[in-house]
Amino acid sequence: MYRTHTCGELRAANIGQTVTLAGWVQRVRKMGGMTFVDLRDRYGITQLRVDDSSAEAVRTTAARLGREFVIQATGVVEERASKNAKIPTGDIELNLTGITVLNESAVPPFTIEDESDGGEDLRARYRYLDLRRNPLKNALMLRHRIAHEVRNYLDGKNFLEIETPFLIKSTPEGARDFVVPSRMNPGQFYALPQSPQTFKQLLMVAGYDRYFQIVRCFRDEDLRADRQPEFTQIDCEMSFVEQEDVLSLFEGMMRHLFKTIHNFDIPNPMPRITWYDAMDSYGSDKPDIRFGMKLHELSALLQGHGFSVFDGAEYIGGIAVPGAAEYTRKQIDELTEWVKRPQVGAKGMVYIRWNADGSIKSSVDKFYTPEILQQAAEAAGAAKGDLVLILCGAKRKTQTQLGVLRIEMGNRLDLRKPFDYAPLWVVDFPLFEWDDETQRFYAMHHPFTAPKPEHLDWYYSNKKEDLERVCANAYDFVLNGVELGGGSIRIHEAEVQKRMFEILGISAEDAEAKFGFIINAFRFGAPPHGGLAFGFDRVCALFGGQETIRDYIAFPKNNMGRDVMLDAPSEIDQTQMDELCLASVLKPE
Amino acid sequence: MYRTHTCGELRAANIGQTVTLAGWVQRVRKMGGMTFVDLRDRYGITQLRVDDSSAEAVRTTAARLGREFVIQATGVVEERASKNAKIPTGDIELNLTGITVLNESAVPPFTIEDESDGGEDLRARYRYLDLRRNPLKNALMLRHRIAHEVRNYLDGKNFLEIETPFLIKSTPEGARDFVVPSRMNPGQFYALPQSPQTFKQLLMVAGYDRYFQIVRCFRDEDLRADRQPEFTQIDCEMSFVEQEDVLSLFEGMMRHLFKTIHNFDIPNPMPRITWYDAMDSYGSDKPDIRFGMKLHELSALLQGHGFSVFDGAEYIGGIAVPGAAEYTRKQIDELTEWVKRPQVGAKGMVYIRWNADGSIKSSVDKFYTPEILQQAAEAAGAAKGDLVLILCGAKRKTQTQLGVLRIEMGNRLDLRKPFDYAPLWVVDFPLFEWDDETQRFYAMHHPFTAPKPEHLDWYYSNKKEDLERVCANAYDFVLNGVELGGGSIRIHEAEVQKRMFEILGISAEDAEAKFGFIINAFRFGAPPHGGLAFGFDRVCALFGGQETIRDYIAFPKNNMGRDVMLDAPSEIDQTQMDELCLASVLKPE
Repeated sequence: MYRTHTCGELRAANIGQTVTLAGWVQRVRKMGGMTFVDLRDRYGITQLRVDDSSAEAVRTTAARLGREFVIQATGVVEERASKNAKIPTGDIELNLTGITVLNESAVPPFTIEDESDGGEDLRARYRYLDLRRNPLKNALMLRHRIAHEVRNYLDGKNFLEIETPFLIKSTPEGARDFVVPSRMNPGQFYALPQSPQTFKQLLMVAGYDRYFQIVRCFRDEDLRADRQPEFTQIDCEMSFVEQEDVLSLFEGMMRHLFKTIHNFDIPNPMPRITWYDAMDSYGSDKPDIRFGMKLHELSALLQGHGFSVFDGAEYIGGIAVPGAAEYTRKQIDELTEWVKRPQVGAKGMVYIRWNADGSIKSSVDKFYTPEILQQAAEAAGAAKGDLVLILCGAKRKTQTQLGVLRIEMGNRLDLRKPFDYAPLWVVDFPLFEWDDETQRFYAMHHPFTAPKPEHLDWYYSNKKEDLERVCANAYDFVLNGVELGGGSIRIHEAEVQKRMFEILGISAEDAEAKFGFIINAFRFGAPPHGGLAFGFDRVCALFGGQETIRDYIAFPKNNMGRDVMLDAPSEIDQTQMDELCLASVLKPE
Repeated sequence: MYRTHTCGELRAANIGQTVTLAGWVQRVRKMGGMTFVDLRDRYGITQLRVDDSSAEAVRTTAARLGREFVIQATGVVEERASKNAKIPTGDIELNLTGITVLNESAVPPFTIEDESDGGEDLRARYRYLDLRRNPLKNALMLRHRIAHEVRNYLDGKNFLEIETPFLIKSTPEGARDFVVPSRMNPGQFYALPQSPQTFKQLLMVAGYDRYFQIVRCFRDEDLRADRQPEFTQIDCEMSFVEQEDVLSLFEGMMRHLFKTIHNFDIPNPMPRITWYDAMDSYGSDKPDIRFGMKLHELSALLQGHGFSVFDGAEYIGGIAVPGAAEYTRKQIDELTEWVKRPQVGAKGMVYIRWNADGSIKSSVDKFYTPEILQQAAEAAGAAKGDLVLILCGAKRKTQTQLGVLRIEMGNRLDLRKPFDYAPLWVVDFPLFEWDDETQRFYAMHHPFTAPKPEHLDWYYSNKKEDLERVCANAYDFVLNGVELGGGSIRIHEAEVQKRMFEILGISAEDAEAKFGFIINAFRFGAPPHGGLAFGFDRVCALFGGQETIRDYIAFPKNNMGRDVMLDAPSEIDQTQMDELCLASVLKPE
């Protein structure tokens, strides 16, 4: 061992001891005849001192130290002349008797400090240096701790962690698969799993009634900000359970995590909301309930007064922004432009300003009396001093726009504190989503989600409006406006599964070819079962008080799916291509 | 919840309680007016009873139950008339008051019993049914338990589990990579990791001084029996350590596993042997030391007596098979044929039979006096009643053949008991292996393994014989003749790494192209570090008393790398090929 202690360990109680540390040179300061070195390792920083009384060899070596040199330092623990209350080792320093340079370092391309001077690209290329910085180190330590507590909790509940394969078969639903050419079977490919969904269901058929896995998944999607082509799930499944059993067990898991990681007690029981209520009240299926500012429908109040835009709308809704009556016309205009950006997509915005003095001002003054406007403001939940923002149009689309606006106003008013946690379950999702473009239904969760038993008549109906109102025993775990996890009770009867494929337009032949093995498996005694999966990267980020996941992944890809440190993906040798019986067919530019 | 208890839970103490169970019908027996149903779940089996006094609905449903039906059964716990001491629930049965068929089952294609009547292929196709059998269920439960204990131990030692990427860059050393075409970067490929080797070393550079991961790895090798294209490693790395630190920490981990899983104390300290001694004494770099029968060199004794085969051999060695002097000529002939099979490759075999009465008989009687033969038998470690088997030829090759013969004799004499554990470290491996065919050196471990500091002169020599004797600070953990893990102290100095690439014939350009990022990383303060990896599948198998890993993997591939349950790999849609800018170039038959 190169050291007797770590750099985060020594205290006043160690004074007088001779110890050896090893680590990286964070900083060298020369003050007159004295040299102070901050030595850093994963555990902390300890100050080393070299002065005129030090041995010549020690002084010579200390004189040539540079940033990020790796050294081994032996010395006597002494009380510091000027203590540093900011670090746990701040009471002491090491009076060096020996020092060895274990490895030199070139000057790093950016500073290894909490706030680095390196740009994102540079830090990505030198990820191994960026990972030396405290924010990333703390993120990865948190990630380890959360994974360990998840496993402790689930192990304690009799769950088995069972590893499922990565080289599987390409499936037609969901996002695009990454594929892996098989050399031993030329012309054939494996696929990397988008999730272990079918395997966990097979494990239920196999009788493993409580399964989990912290597992990598892969999706070849066109990347959006903060999406990774590979990501990690906490994947879980249970047999002989109803929705209530699943919710209560995983509510317990999140309770355990909040308690052990943050010593924070989440509400017991946790709030629940139906998908329909979430859309109506928050304009989102993943509402941030840390603040109010709920959506209110104003159609009945505001229609029939001659304002044609409102009169022709399916839905009119508003939110009351507290204390925002003082917004200037310019600020309101800017907000109007903001909601008209393509990312939000509103056609325009109406406001009602209910001033602190009780007076009312609105962009649609000429169609409405102050009384009506005040009624509308009150219906939107406003009080004097508030600003009501109103959008209109197709119902769900408008609600979604209002939901986005609500989050934006929450951000602007600083109502979304990172370490203020408001988890909830969203339940009773519609089973299907209709897509106008392709004129077909898609599974809102995935094609193994069971319809609510009380909706089976609609499920077997051929009418679009019946199918649209079929609900699923599906649920999402939402925290602070982020969907952290979701799942459902699954179909365990072969007949119900066949009907699902039929509704989704998957032909019997296709279903047989792609899912034959699972349809077949269900013939041999599938138990009632259900489960869920959490996005582990996002769980870690939110527990760390962040919404972006990249710092919580040791070696992430960039927005183009590239690992810029490795320079991957890259071309491979022609011999590799030949062995795989593959040729590149690059499209003309 | 569909049940109040599991099928492994009820005891005499529960008599009189009304309970509900759910599970699979293992067996139905009708005896007169009574029907007994064995109900099975992951936790055990409970007997259900239906008789003339049962409600008619219960009797009707019970009458139509078939094997593997999934049912929910409610009843009163009663004392059994005839108890079954073989199962924990054998004192009681459930007198049914209600029964619901949750799902029917087609007749399974093989019996769900400890000894199934299904062949290997059939069971692989219906893996989800095979997994219902106790041997597989116990294997996966053991696997979960071992993984959990590994994590507990390493977490307790301040190790962080850090996930490394799966979509990485193809590297030139070692086995063939599986590759993943990138749709977003046409003509380019990711590779799946053969191990996280470079990442764990980068994590050491990044200052994460104790890393581990239980992680999937991939190798596109021509499959041998009991090899899987994807397999799981316990991967570990430490900084500021010497070989002794690594050995003692992971000896501690194995000690913890043996204690918690089997309540077995492995020797403290564990035995160690150098690679050279292992080859000389056991003819193997992974010796099974549960039994003796060591190799002994007999060259000095047996050369110079006119037997030209021996006289011309580089090496003559023998093993003494205890009590085997009674082997018939036919048995010895069969053994001779056995060592001449291509898998072993010996040219022939000489025996010395030292009979219990003290007389000596040998196949080379005419060249040697009985006194010489007895001296040779004694030198081989034999006593009266033993049989000495002798091979000769090139030294390491012959030792290896003797090592294989030794294991075979150990098997035949039943000296290799599955639950008798004899772990040891094999240390001081040669750094390089010379390959005659390609006329170049290969890294015996991998190209990041450090030479022993005391061998650096040889390492920088250009003479083949110098390079051949360079030893590595490398070590293997061996259990019962199986290499369970291995590792080394790594090169942390850029200069030493460059020399390694040079010796391995990797050009500076190639090294820069393939390993540029890690060579570069080493310029910024790499600490001294080392680690190891255990083959997790094999650890689980050996802890389960097996040598084959397939039962310890939930969904394994067959020897052709196929998942016969999924029917993967398989062809993909032309649209997928087009999106990837790939074309299949199948070779003519």
